[in-house]
Amino acid sequence: LSYVLAVDLGGTKCSAASIDKSGRLLSRRTVAVDHSSAMGPLRQIIELGNELADGKRPHRVFAAAAVAVPGLVRRKGTVWAPNLPGWENMPLASRLKRALGIPVLVESDRSAAVLGECWRGAGRGRSDVVVLMIGTGIGAGILSGGRIIRGAHELSGCAGWLTITREKVPKATGNGELETLVAGPAIARAAQAALREGQQSCLSAMDGSKITAHEVAAAARQGDRVAQNIFDRCGKLLGFGIANIVSLFDPQVVVLGGGMASAADLYLDALKSAMRERAQPLAARQVRVVVSKLGDEIILLGCAQLAFTTRKGKR
Amino acid sequence: LSYVLAVDLGGTKCSAASIDKSGRLLSRRTVAVDHSSAMGPLRQIIELGNELADGKRPHRVFAAAAVAVPGLVRRKGTVWAPNLPGWENMPLASRLKRALGIPVLVESDRSAAVLGECWRGAGRGRSDVVVLMIGTGIGAGILSGGRIIRGAHELSGCAGWLTITREKVPKATGNGELETLVAGPAIARAAQAALREGQQSCLSAMDGSKITAHEVAAAARQGDRVAQNIFDRCGKLLGFGIANIVSLFDPQVVVLGGGMASAADLYLDALKSAMRERAQPLAARQVRVVVSKLGDEIILLGCAQLAFTTRKGKR
Repeated sequence: LSYVLAVDLGGTKCSAASIDKSGRLLSRRTVAVDHSSAMGPLRQIIELGNELADGKRPHRVFAAAAVAVPGLVRRKGTVWAPNLPGWENMPLASRLKRALGIPVLVESDRSAAVLGECWRGAGRGRSDVVVLMIGTGIGAGILSGGRIIRGAHELSGCAGWLTITREKVPKATGNGELETLVAGPAIARAAQAALREGQQSCLSAMDGSKITAHEVAAAARQGDRVAQNIFDRCGKLLGFGIANIVSLFDPQVVVLGGGMASAADLYLDALKSAMRERAQPLAARQVRVVVSKLGDEIILLGCAQLAFTTRKGKR
Repeated sequence: LSYVLAVDLGGTKCSAASIDKSGRLLSRRTVAVDHSSAMGPLRQIIELGNELADGKRPHRVFAAAAVAVPGLVRRKGTVWAPNLPGWENMPLASRLKRALGIPVLVESDRSAAVLGECWRGAGRGRSDVVVLMIGTGIGAGILSGGRIIRGAHELSGCAGWLTITREKVPKATGNGELETLVAGPAIARAAQAALREGQQSCLSAMDGSKITAHEVAAAARQGDRVAQNIFDRCGKLLGFGIANIVSLFDPQVVVLGGGMASAADLYLDALKSAMRERAQPLAARQVRVVVSKLGDEIILLGCAQLAFTTRKGKR
């Protein structure tokens, strides 16, 4: 069987694809995640799997399945995902395996991202790769010495929690400092604050509460100084965070992925120069910082790689 | 043969010991490093090895030797050490092997420290351990998933380069931010600055230029507020740096080693509370931060562990 079922289960959307050995997506379906019960997302994944099997039984079409989840993966594919109601201890792998009749692997979204980038992206042939996923949150998938770094409790790569300033971060957010300062919502908040201060911007015409990072990026591309300054600052702070990652891991390449990566043209220069200013100089000189070309397929591709290489893996 | 030769080659001192399988140091010699030529330290290690063999030929006494170096270890045990004149590309392993007639392994001092701590210290039986060596400089030895993290260019663990503030760090030092703010010399500089400002301290009686971290620690233990405040601030900033390490690596234990660890009673509480304030909360709750009990034997023990377990290792 030359296809696998790849599933990217997020906090809001669930995407599934049938992928071949060359990394080609044959078909793909995306649905809004059913938050009504713990069983909701499980049922959705099973339905997507059956749909993508195209009328056949999944085990006649797919060699295996792999699911990336927005949370912690414990032994035997049990998942804790704070954004999915009732997923404190969901035995995802065993339930899906029973329903689909194929081996099922479960991986954290961060680690799936770095596997995808190492299979089909900028990490190909590399042993030391960090993929920084920047969207609503920030997390890092880390390959070091050819192996995924998981941590003692599967909590490695929490790059959103990096401290890069001495300031107290507003506690209310419950997020880490880097995430509070530069993830998508931070861009929107910074624009809203600038408008409240009365700064002149083409965003002034908008209802402040409706501004998202997307609108701020569009304004910056039109030459709006307020929006450009926000991305400049974001790039600088991200550069400090990446400098810390570079000094500790000494990777060959750092790949930017996630929603905010599509706006990287607006902050990549500021990011690189801040990184070079702060990271260990020999490591900084040798690392490449690039934007992922895999777009929103990065995690699906990582799942496919996982399903193809470790069909009987223990996860 | 039940002994190995362990050598801790630093920038200023070189220590060698004969160690048995239980981690007992049978005898130990320490000399000031000969900086007169590239061959100086090499000759010293050979002499120490012969001395510790106690009149016998080293290969009749030692199963193997391992040397920890203050620099980068390249393939085949070739060393780049910026603090040793002429050590841009020193073929240390091959030269020592020829002179001593036994297998010789070469390791960075940071990685030797974490090996020592995992063999005979607080890292015993653990898979995810970070040893933060704090002295004149700052560096981290990292074990993750049971393996040493080396980085793509053997530059991992450069924790002295962690950025934890947005301030520009004085460029002149050539060191990273965390190192500039909290390593031994920073403690001395902070005390000198406080005295110049006219703050009242029992250190005021001293010649400012002669104050070292050691005197500041002694003053703090006598209740001197100026000295105590310096260590409080140092603990807080170190806590921020360790928070970054915890959020990225999720270790079971962080061990403080090096000269500054002996003053940890003065800053450990401040360090822990800053770490808990900033690190990913689940990882912060589970990690232990402890002071190494191995003192200045930590690197020697790591060398011994290395020599006993990988006598024919490729390094």
